[in-house]
Amino acid sequence: MHPLQWIAAWVLLLHGCAIGRLPQAAFARTDVRNCSMDPPYLPPTATNTTARLAALRDIMRAYGVQAYIVPSTDAHMSEYIAERDSRLGWLTGFTGSAGTGVVTQDKAALWTDSRYWTQAERQMDCNWELQRTPWVESIGLWILEAVPVGGSVSLDPFLFSIDTWNSYSQALHGSGRTLLPIEPNLVDLVWGDKRPPPASGEIYSLPPAFTGSTWQEKVDGIRKQMEQHIRRPTALLLSGLEETAWLFNLRGDDIPYNPVFYSYTLLTNTSISLFVDEKRLSAEARQSLQAKCPGSLCVELQEYGQARAHLRRYAQGNVIVWLGTEYTTYGLYGVIPQEKLLEDRYSPVMLAKAVKNTKEQKLMRAAHVRDAVAVIQYLLWLEKMVPQGKVDEFLGAQHIDALRQAQEHNHGPSFQSISASGLNAALAHYSPSNGSSRMLSVDEMYLSDTGGQYLDGTTDITRTVHWGVPTPLQKEAYTRVLMGNIDLSRLVFPPNTAGRTVESFARRALWDVGLNYGHGTGHGIGNFLSVHEWPVGFQSNNVPLAAGMFTSIEPGYYRDGEFGIRIEDVALVVEAQTKHQSGEKPFLTFEVVSLVPYDRNLIDLSLLSQDQIQYLNAYYDTIRARVGPELQRQQLEEEYRWLQRNTEPFPLGSAAAATATLGTLALASLLSVLLTGLQA
Amino acid sequence: MHPLQWIAAWVLLLHGCAIGRLPQAAFARTDVRNCSMDPPYLPPTATNTTARLAALRDIMRAYGVQAYIVPSTDAHMSEYIAERDSRLGWLTGFTGSAGTGVVTQDKAALWTDSRYWTQAERQMDCNWELQRTPWVESIGLWILEAVPVGGSVSLDPFLFSIDTWNSYSQALHGSGRTLLPIEPNLVDLVWGDKRPPPASGEIYSLPPAFTGSTWQEKVDGIRKQMEQHIRRPTALLLSGLEETAWLFNLRGDDIPYNPVFYSYTLLTNTSISLFVDEKRLSAEARQSLQAKCPGSLCVELQEYGQARAHLRRYAQGNVIVWLGTEYTTYGLYGVIPQEKLLEDRYSPVMLAKAVKNTKEQKLMRAAHVRDAVAVIQYLLWLEKMVPQGKVDEFLGAQHIDALRQAQEHNHGPSFQSISASGLNAALAHYSPSNGSSRMLSVDEMYLSDTGGQYLDGTTDITRTVHWGVPTPLQKEAYTRVLMGNIDLSRLVFPPNTAGRTVESFARRALWDVGLNYGHGTGHGIGNFLSVHEWPVGFQSNNVPLAAGMFTSIEPGYYRDGEFGIRIEDVALVVEAQTKHQSGEKPFLTFEVVSLVPYDRNLIDLSLLSQDQIQYLNAYYDTIRARVGPELQRQQLEEEYRWLQRNTEPFPLGSAAAATATLGTLALASLLSVLLTGLQA
Repeated sequence: MHPLQWIAAWVLLLHGCAIGRLPQAAFARTDVRNCSMDPPYLPPTATNTTARLAALRDIMRAYGVQAYIVPSTDAHMSEYIAERDSRLGWLTGFTGSAGTGVVTQDKAALWTDSRYWTQAERQMDCNWELQRTPWVESIGLWILEAVPVGGSVSLDPFLFSIDTWNSYSQALHGSGRTLLPIEPNLVDLVWGDKRPPPASGEIYSLPPAFTGSTWQEKVDGIRKQMEQHIRRPTALLLSGLEETAWLFNLRGDDIPYNPVFYSYTLLTNTSISLFVDEKRLSAEARQSLQAKCPGSLCVELQEYGQARAHLRRYAQGNVIVWLGTEYTTYGLYGVIPQEKLLEDRYSPVMLAKAVKNTKEQKLMRAAHVRDAVAVIQYLLWLEKMVPQGKVDEFLGAQHIDALRQAQEHNHGPSFQSISASGLNAALAHYSPSNGSSRMLSVDEMYLSDTGGQYLDGTTDITRTVHWGVPTPLQKEAYTRVLMGNIDLSRLVFPPNTAGRTVESFARRALWDVGLNYGHGTGHGIGNFLSVHEWPVGFQSNNVPLAAGMFTSIEPGYYRDGEFGIRIEDVALVVEAQTKHQSGEKPFLTFEVVSLVPYDRNLIDLSLLSQDQIQYLNAYYDTIRARVGPELQRQQLEEEYRWLQRNTEPFPLGSAAAATATLGTLALASLLSVLLTGLQA
Repeated sequence: MHPLQWIAAWVLLLHGCAIGRLPQAAFARTDVRNCSMDPPYLPPTATNTTARLAALRDIMRAYGVQAYIVPSTDAHMSEYIAERDSRLGWLTGFTGSAGTGVVTQDKAALWTDSRYWTQAERQMDCNWELQRTPWVESIGLWILEAVPVGGSVSLDPFLFSIDTWNSYSQALHGSGRTLLPIEPNLVDLVWGDKRPPPASGEIYSLPPAFTGSTWQEKVDGIRKQMEQHIRRPTALLLSGLEETAWLFNLRGDDIPYNPVFYSYTLLTNTSISLFVDEKRLSAEARQSLQAKCPGSLCVELQEYGQARAHLRRYAQGNVIVWLGTEYTTYGLYGVIPQEKLLEDRYSPVMLAKAVKNTKEQKLMRAAHVRDAVAVIQYLLWLEKMVPQGKVDEFLGAQHIDALRQAQEHNHGPSFQSISASGLNAALAHYSPSNGSSRMLSVDEMYLSDTGGQYLDGTTDITRTVHWGVPTPLQKEAYTRVLMGNIDLSRLVFPPNTAGRTVESFARRALWDVGLNYGHGTGHGIGNFLSVHEWPVGFQSNNVPLAAGMFTSIEPGYYRDGEFGIRIEDVALVVEAQTKHQSGEKPFLTFEVVSLVPYDRNLIDLSLLSQDQIQYLNAYYDTIRARVGPELQRQQLEEEYRWLQRNTEPFPLGSAAAATATLGTLALASLLSVLLTGLQA
């Protein structure tokens, strides 16, 4: 999945030097809306927020609050959120995934990054000014202008991580304005009974065939870490929804695309409290959790809403509570006395989850084989249908979703399918909608970035194709993006290498000719969990790469108003076989588990080195060996032939071509002639 | 110069994610000293510190201080310090460049990193325990054990940067111990009249031929930055000795290897105060500084010791003082009210100095041509003398120093010459001393890392050679280190790229076969200033690379107890010519300005790609074109012939060899035969 969709949420949480790459923004532009006209001009897509804002302002007055901050996330710092948590969307009309709103008695403003500017202008009415930056610093400056000294700036402490709270606190520090946490959530009070109800779907156990370890084994492992930690924490608090889902091998459908459910966990050295809507648990789930009751492996089920009260009571004892600051809200954090806290950026569960064991790796590989079948079916279907002018972007997205759905163990897409033709692919963030969708054509490039949720694994793959005659620039850029993908995938590197120090290998082939891309190079991914699973990847705030981690590798190239290219695979970090060895631990490399060939029509073989061609041929061998039998098993004979055609080994003899491009040796042309003769 | 010599001093100053690479330390080892014997066993090199410590403890009692911290730096955060500032060395006996001592009434301990453990054991008596870590956190823990609650921990605030002060402050925070700045320096009180006198040498103006701009132009440029800054600073405080030396085009000899002099500068929008020992200024220097008096370009000369008092008075007005936190001591910082401070990591002078203008680039290139002559003379001399068994490491170091000294505009070495034979080169930090120096031999590799100060530029170059038959591993490792040097040197990258994100290109050829090196990849360098000029380089805390910056590029490989390899060149960041262009600013690449060929005896050509060979041949063309004429001008005919021999182009036809190593195509052997025939 395209990393620009996750980078912005995270740069907000970064501190110090850990600034990710963002597209260059802040150029002059005209708002789609014209709010200085009388009446203002608004696109038909704008939401009328006058009544909502008036009601919120009434409540703010009642609470004595001069400014109220509304974020886009939920109480678990989720990247994707449920409709019920889309407070910012309901209040502003803006439905983008990243943004912050601030309301005062006479002003209202929304901050978001460049991906969402046009969308925000189209969705918001003139009650809202658009601030074209995502930084807390800029929100802080705006608040200082809008709120007089002595005023209160308020927010819901359960919707802000510890780090984000600290950023606001710092922005207002010494300014004479107070940062005031208030419960309940003021937007919820206005939203009232129009607010969607809480999730009610079943929470179910993953069958043992699809889990890497029993939940008891996982709990034992985490408790061992607690015992061995120098500070001897007595409990671990889990707020991230993936954390609890992973720990107990449970899944739910509370949030689109992510099979998680609302919950908190407090794991102590002697007890386990799971805060969840108990009646939603399936019989098997309840049985699994309570099989060993009473005892230290008995899960006590508590009401979801009781997490804080329980934590507060627990924290009165002689205890130390361990937590990850990136996923814990200030609301929970605040009830633990400072001297009883053990803070890390990520909880030990996040770090344990990041490293997949042998069985989890096997499951992920298997999911990727079936996923490849669906994508191959899709590519073949496009090859036949596009020349007939029968496919637009939206239909394409629907079709790949349906093909995946037909695969065994599928539980829907892992994110909203990106299906972008021609210039639309140059937009960093693009999903087609019914009715406003571009027709696919043999005259344009087409980019498909999609993924599936399967009981055994989560997938995420991008292929870019051209069914006609690409321009020389398209072909060169595609080839160089592919070279970057290959160069990072085949890199051998020492243990404990941080992703950020090696991601340039995915860029170098582009850099060589003055090209680049403005987003990150990859992100972790879960076993039937999030398509963006932190803290693995190539960003500044990711943890060092270790064997057993999965990450996407997804360089790209985008030409405004013309075309966009991205080639994305999921890869597993594995031990490398090296000629020599230094240090105690072996060096690492990647094993690519996405198994779909690239577009031969877009590869300029003369640009590839012998090593790159060899790598590509070996990768194609793997695809044939793993996906071929599955295509046959599913009796997809046409797809099988397509696969064979598209994984033909590339000629290594093109050494001649490579040598010729050196252009400095008279010998080269002679060789070239010789080789052509020999190959013919 | 070897980056391990500068990395340790800097990691101490780092915060958050900016942790540099350090060698893996902390293995069990036995102290050279035996302090449990009675009497203790001490090597003859140990210093008796009993009287000094007793005197210091008397003074500590008089001041009511329970622990006193003694750092290794001076009041300007200099990397190299004068004898007069070697308080730690005098008090402990330990003369390494990085360390911290802490003294209580009954204990004394020294902290230093692994480079210096053996040296510390050899130089210190049993009054001192050796703590084998450089981290402030560990010093803090030791102090908490040694000092009871209520006690005072003291230090000289003029010897600690703001950041280091904050680290100690944090380590003691909430512990009941007070961190107490005390003047005067308690070690100085003990040292008394035995302490070396202040520097008295002349402070001189650089002749206009050797400066990039007049000092007035530099001052104008900095004042423009002050005007344009959103916070409108009224003054800039300069504490780094390089900052003042660069700004006024002045030089001195107060510190070994670095042509600087003790000074502070307070540059306001209307005045300039230079705090310096006025009587040491040459007539030309004084004339240059005061040519435009009175007025805003008149330099007011003030006593060096008056800097703080003057700053305190200035800070009482309606002012804002801009400073760089890495080079300003807590002592000076403390006199400026918080709201009147504008803090950046590096001052605008540091950042301006880092980007050399066209004339400064030309000067650096010229210095490197003469420097290459000296190094080529040295390599030729070694070639003749080593087989006769007449050269040891110390003699070698003396000889290269003398050869440089004979070159025009030379002002001595830019650091203590590293001259290391065989296993000695595997030590990260090694300089030979007279009498205990290893003989050079045709049976061992030899590493020479040296540099010169010239009026037009500072140089730093490492060459590793073997005059006999290298082992296959030596040859492979050397070739791969060279490949890393080449791959980083020829990299094309976008503007604003941070060095840390590209330094892996210097490692990849080693990584490919499971090898690596444990130090940084390069550092900035000055025009007749420091050989390690911050903030340029490839470390986490370096600023992004920009055209006009010079940095060393110095991958290596070290095999404990066997041999060490490093290949270091200085390179200029220049604009690249790329086929395409994205963004407004051109991409960047490096131009290597060190001009000495590599050891052909150690290069395995079959490992190099065609692109690498082409690059190497083009570099050798440049060496011939730039150094050849200078050798002839100096009538060094034998050296000229040596240069021609050693810069013969490598055959690109070894494409055949490269293809053959692919080993997957039957065609390859046929081609090889064909090529051999054609080349013959």
